[in-house]
Amino acid sequence: MTRVLTLDSMNPNVKRVEYAVRGPIVQRAVQIEKELKEGAKKPFTEVIKANIGDAHAMGQKPITFFRQVLALCSYPALLEDSKFPEDAKQRARRILEACGGHSIGAYSASQGIECIRQDVARYIEKRDGGIPSNPDNIYLSTGASDAIVTILKLLVCGEGRDRTGVMISIPQYPLYSAALADLGAVQINYYLDEDNCWSLNITELRRALSAAREHCNPRVLCIINPGNPTGQVQSRQCIEDVIRFAKEEHLFLMADEVYQDNVYAEGCQFHSFKKVLFEMGPEYSNTVEMASFHSTSKCYMGECGFRGGYMEVINLDPEVKAQLIKLVSVRLCPPVPGQALLDLVVNPPQPDEPSYATFMKERTAVLSALAEKARLTEQIFNTVPGITCNPVQGAMYTFPRITLPQKAIDKAKELGLVPDMFYCMRLLDEEGICLVPGSGFGQREGTYHFRMTILPPTEKLKVVLQKIREFQLRFTQEFS
Amino acid sequence: MTRVLTLDSMNPNVKRVEYAVRGPIVQRAVQIEKELKEGAKKPFTEVIKANIGDAHAMGQKPITFFRQVLALCSYPALLEDSKFPEDAKQRARRILEACGGHSIGAYSASQGIECIRQDVARYIEKRDGGIPSNPDNIYLSTGASDAIVTILKLLVCGEGRDRTGVMISIPQYPLYSAALADLGAVQINYYLDEDNCWSLNITELRRALSAAREHCNPRVLCIINPGNPTGQVQSRQCIEDVIRFAKEEHLFLMADEVYQDNVYAEGCQFHSFKKVLFEMGPEYSNTVEMASFHSTSKCYMGECGFRGGYMEVINLDPEVKAQLIKLVSVRLCPPVPGQALLDLVVNPPQPDEPSYATFMKERTAVLSALAEKARLTEQIFNTVPGITCNPVQGAMYTFPRITLPQKAIDKAKELGLVPDMFYCMRLLDEEGICLVPGSGFGQREGTYHFRMTILPPTEKLKVVLQKIREFQLRFTQEFS
Ligand SMILES: Cc1ncc(COP(=O)(O)O)c(C=O)c1O
Ligand SMILES: Cc1ncc(COP(=O)(O)O)c(C=O)c1O
Repeated sequence: MTRVLTLDSMNPNVKRVEYAVRGPIVQRAVQIEKELKEGAKKPFTEVIKANIGDAHAMGQKPITFFRQVLALCSYPALLEDSKFPEDAKQRARRILEACGGHSIGAYSASQGIECIRQDVARYIEKRDGGIPSNPDNIYLSTGASDAIVTILKLLVCGEGRDRTGVMISIPQYPLYSAALADLGAVQINYYLDEDNCWSLNITELRRALSAAREHCNPRVLCIINPGNPTGQVQSRQCIEDVIRFAKEEHLFLMADEVYQDNVYAEGCQFHSFKKVLFEMGPEYSNTVEMASFHSTSKCYMGECGFRGGYMEVINLDPEVKAQLIKLVSVRLCPPVPGQALLDLVVNPPQPDEPSYATFMKERTAVLSALAEKARLTEQIFNTVPGITCNPVQGAMYTFPRITLPQKAIDKAKELGLVPDMFYCMRLLDEEGICLVPGSGFGQREGTYHFRMTILPPTEKLKVVLQKIREFQLRFTQEFS
Repeated sequence: MTRVLTLDSMNPNVKRVEYAVRGPIVQRAVQIEKELKEGAKKPFTEVIKANIGDAHAMGQKPITFFRQVLALCSYPALLEDSKFPEDAKQRARRILEACGGHSIGAYSASQGIECIRQDVARYIEKRDGGIPSNPDNIYLSTGASDAIVTILKLLVCGEGRDRTGVMISIPQYPLYSAALADLGAVQINYYLDEDNCWSLNITELRRALSAAREHCNPRVLCIINPGNPTGQVQSRQCIEDVIRFAKEEHLFLMADEVYQDNVYAEGCQFHSFKKVLFEMGPEYSNTVEMASFHSTSKCYMGECGFRGGYMEVINLDPEVKAQLIKLVSVRLCPPVPGQALLDLVVNPPQPDEPSYATFMKERTAVLSALAEKARLTEQIFNTVPGITCNPVQGAMYTFPRITLPQKAIDKAKELGLVPDMFYCMRLLDEEGICLVPGSGFGQREGTYHFRMTILPPTEKLKVVLQKIREFQLRFTQEFS
């Protein structure tokens, strides 16, 4: 039988897509978990998945207020229940009133529920010290992933040397390379500076851009701040430089700011691209085209499963906006529970409301624990011979560099594996710890890294760090 | 200022996308609603949106059991609440146990939560009289829309005469044409037979296919059963013929079965493509490649906002399956509340469970009301001069044919409008009823239609039918 659809006859762009965060190593981890369940004997009793930024999976508890409102929205009979606080009920009523038939089971407007877009705009204004935000520029989405892919899809066109080029940082979050492969766009790598806390360097942007101009049409510059997988937080100065560069070079800016609450290091602060853009004056704020992204998946709430998110567009051509609305209509609407959750994130309990104290306690507990774990991770890794690690200034990851003995590199090649994949596979098999090899995010030739989340509970994180330490020593010894 | 992203410099495939269900007429309806809210005087006091298959927006109430479980999953503290029935709690516990960290806020496996995929497989087996279904062949999705676009994306490749052609019915659900435009695939139209209750005719399939072979590479055949916008239900014989045709012509089958519970006409019955395929024997069941789709948005539950859905693939090449899993990984996972809801749809209360009676009562009430409205709609429309209407055998729509006076057609052309768009715009402005013009779904040259949902509550539906009747008489008179 010859099939209609085979590897040879399928969409070649899809074949080119890679996605390491859920790649072979994770599939192996799932396999091992099954074996453990079936009673297999291993040198460990559980697999610790530090491969993905999934806070709840690592034991973080949801914010009570958010879940109360979601329960009320799901089953409005609970609005009569005195166990629920008034502010939760008031939020739920407001959301339900904005839904068709007062049900979160109705499709919403494709751009998202209007009153939620208004709340998002108000949140952005408050965050950015009063710089206006227009709800018409807000598009709710199915996680930030969806919005990022959608705006890239609008931007990609041309053939051969005219094909759209998109600049992404290396290391990068692999959604970007995957989306670019899928769209057949040209990926333009600019390298973050590992020796300077993974900071972004304008000279490197210039180098990457002029090299790319030889073979494609660079039109887009993507920034992740705070960074995944690198955990760096960009300085205000750096953001200004990037915006100036984008204007000079006529690039559309994409600012991925899903970790905007995740800033830990002293002296670091989150500056939104929108705010800096507007503070640079009308010469910039009236001309630079930009989309910025946020999500319910990260920060202190970590509500990944709801797939909530939004993007704000700035200076988008009105005709293109109409095209964007048409495009998002095809999939009808983002999940309404995710929209509801996003509404709570941008409009949380206020000081005069009954849920405020608990909300703040829960939020602060999560963020301080993360700050503590960020510190701990850097500190411990930097005591391990062969591992060097930048400070985790923000986000949820560390991306330490590992020095691999030549014999290990040779062994990996013999097995047909990238050296850091070999390292991570061995770590998984021997210690039950699941990390993502640096090669999944991109790294300078000849350097090796892994990405680890700092999300496990502190005590477990300590165990993980200890186990990696032991493994690293053993591994180095074995191949010396 | 010249922008980076303009209508001229954007992705030309996106420009080609059309999506009538949420097109200009709906935008105008939203506008009118705003005007009414601001106190504008109109010949009506509300806009009735019969343009979209959105049951809750039309006042249908959610199934109590489903929403109880969703509330429990959202806020597990309620598991201690004696107000909730035991079967709802048991379902919620089972779903939570399958979630990372026992939270629906964790990302799930990209293919969907395993135990839910198992439940889906069991549901399919039961539905299809025991024909086996493998959970590995089930992919949960963000509504059926997502799964449909994903499988099309895998299938489209080639350039020029080798470009993949995809056969779709005319009239069609415009997700298909939109997705094909976006992917740059070749749309191959086959016309349903309006004179025979919109049935599918193999001779017409053959005609369309051989014409298409002149200029592209036809590889896919899409079927919607029960049909949107046409409301027809395919006979077992017809499905067999289609499967035989797909095998002979080496086509990948896509069976959109989101209306599988929505069958009303006497003598009609839903037959799944999967079941018929397997009953045709191994010659077919071992060779014909197929994907079929289901959704939480339709049937008796109408839970559109949750964006739940699944597809089952049959005879998919194992290497392609790996590619599919990789592709869906990029967007991390479908919304978990939607997955949970899907689990309830495929695993509803059983006769020995406390919620069974209420569940059955609610389900039956919705489906009998729909059957009644289907009958009513056909009956009333067929008494209106200039409107002819096939029986609404299934789904949620009627697609009646309207005879337009030549003067109306001329007037429309003068205004630069398609004639049935002109008709629907006038109906909206004069009666506050929002329908979709037939041209949004495709129709034979020189014929005109509109699509109306049968979802408004019976009394309101009667008013709508009466108003359309009056409008049709007035409109015909005006242009005679
Ligand atoms: C930098 C970055 N952007 C976007 C996303 C996508 O998140 P989601 O689609 O869950 O909102 C992630 C997820 O890890 C991320 O790290
Ligand atoms: C035939 C058909 N397929 C698919 C869909 C998509 O539905 P959803 O994405 O909400 O599951 C619809 C929605 O109306 C439809 O009518």
